[in-house]
Amino acid sequence: MTVVYQRVALIGLGLIASSMAHAMRQFGLAAEITGHAKSAETRAIAAEIGLCDRVFETAAEAVAGADLVVLCVPIGAMAAIAAEIAPHLAAGATVTDVGSVKGAVVEAVKPHMPDHVHFIPGHPIAGTEHSGPRSGFATLFQNRWWLLTPPEGADPAAVARLRALCEGMGANVDEMDAAHHDLVLAVTSHTPHLIAYTMVGVAEHMRRVSNSEVIKYSAGGFRDLTRIAASDPVMWRDVFLNNKDAVLDILGRFTEELFVLQRAIRMEDGEHLHAYFTRTRAIRRGIIEAGQDTSAPDFGRVARVEGKGTA
Amino acid sequence: MTVVYQRVALIGLGLIASSMAHAMRQFGLAAEITGHAKSAETRAIAAEIGLCDRVFETAAEAVAGADLVVLCVPIGAMAAIAAEIAPHLAAGATVTDVGSVKGAVVEAVKPHMPDHVHFIPGHPIAGTEHSGPRSGFATLFQNRWWLLTPPEGADPAAVARLRALCEGMGANVDEMDAAHHDLVLAVTSHTPHLIAYTMVGVAEHMRRVSNSEVIKYSAGGFRDLTRIAASDPVMWRDVFLNNKDAVLDILGRFTEELFVLQRAIRMEDGEHLHAYFTRTRAIRRGIIEAGQDTSAPDFGRVARVEGKGTA
Repeated sequence: MTVVYQRVALIGLGLIASSMAHAMRQFGLAAEITGHAKSAETRAIAAEIGLCDRVFETAAEAVAGADLVVLCVPIGAMAAIAAEIAPHLAAGATVTDVGSVKGAVVEAVKPHMPDHVHFIPGHPIAGTEHSGPRSGFATLFQNRWWLLTPPEGADPAAVARLRALCEGMGANVDEMDAAHHDLVLAVTSHTPHLIAYTMVGVAEHMRRVSNSEVIKYSAGGFRDLTRIAASDPVMWRDVFLNNKDAVLDILGRFTEELFVLQRAIRMEDGEHLHAYFTRTRAIRRGIIEAGQDTSAPDFGRVARVEGKGTA
Repeated sequence: MTVVYQRVALIGLGLIASSMAHAMRQFGLAAEITGHAKSAETRAIAAEIGLCDRVFETAAEAVAGADLVVLCVPIGAMAAIAAEIAPHLAAGATVTDVGSVKGAVVEAVKPHMPDHVHFIPGHPIAGTEHSGPRSGFATLFQNRWWLLTPPEGADPAAVARLRALCEGMGANVDEMDAAHHDLVLAVTSHTPHLIAYTMVGVAEHMRRVSNSEVIKYSAGGFRDLTRIAASDPVMWRDVFLNNKDAVLDILGRFTEELFVLQRAIRMEDGEHLHAYFTRTRAIRRGIIEAGQDTSAPDFGRVARVEGKGTA
């Protein structure tokens, strides 16, 4: 691999930024990596584990001289950060972000961007339920999609360079407009997270079923939902506040659909249920064929959990 | 391990029965295993891979002389099977089942059981999204819970013997009454499956988002739901038809809860969302501490999927 950027500034040092740091280093994509996090504790950890070449107390210092700035903060923090760094951005630098919503990020960041920088929003569709500067790993982006939403009139060379960085970290890159991104993600990520959070909340509230039963017998399906419901609360609060319209649209469809199935259960319409449950299998197969999940039973986790067995 | 039963008859040869066959053989728990499946194709596969010592065309033949009969058929098929095997059950034999609903199984099976057999319903909370006679493996039950719902007045020695078999296959055993079982499972398994099926159905119906986008970008959370939505359609149809009341109860709670979150999104109540998303993390931690899931990021599947990477 060849160096794509001379100095990459990571603003916010959580799961995505720390994975980018590991990946850029492993694949030799950045000559230098600087970083900033709001929390002194996070900065101390980043320094301790050598996540960046230099860690700064302010975002303004971290972006000085960088030819790529990556905003890795919750969406609600984007506007303030953009305002703070704007005067310190180098001419010709590219500014991108990794937020899960794109329309709101454009609204928050774009007004602050000087004309002499390229602002190209982005979103790696990758993550785990873990967060913080210690949670990153170099292979997080392997065979994952990284969506870029360059605005109309974006400089093709700047887009190509950012794309090269993403591909260098192992990702596949697609481009689309911000509104389409937000609708697609409402379906494939935001609404699934919300219903997972909801189901976990229902289980938590059940008085007749003790928490310990919910936990003990979770292997029946519930535990699959708890993984995404364990994701970072601040990040997800901001996702729902900032992709409100698309999420409410998909939630409306979800509720309609759920009511149809609920009615089929109440009316004991076995044919309807069977036909429905048969169709949904095809989507799972498609995901496995597209290399976006493992075909190993139970996500391949059986053997790992087994290690804790009592037998 | 010592032999617990001399002859175990497996009626129905899908994921659970084939896993039991492998586990009983591996741990030396049954001197002989007989089997029956309705489908000639399944019987041929079972014979080909040596799943049982003997495979029979009828359930009646398979249960003759067995001291344990395990009904591993969809719940809707239980009554007919029970009627068929009843005249052929050996005196003192135990009949159990592995259905995901217990009240309906008791209703379907108990009227047919002669006084000289012990009927002890059961449910291993274990499974994968795969089905059929080739899908079983010996470690499926390791550290999973196996719930028994012995009726009032059940013979303690017969219950202890069945418990010894389950524990011999690596499971932990709990006893409870059938109605409580059905409520607990509505929370930890049935409703989670239904909402997963629903979300996958919504994604499938979206016209503005092509299927290929839903599949490509599924790593944002959606793919977690598709695993359980790929489970056996007949089994799940029967679960919902036979645990209707508990599922409708939990679904009602789920919808209420979802509407509260939906309203918080609409009203932009970030505090409510953040507090909710913080509470649900604790349940995930509990599940991991209880050894019911892996703490590895992304169920530990990252490395497996990575193998298909393009980098």
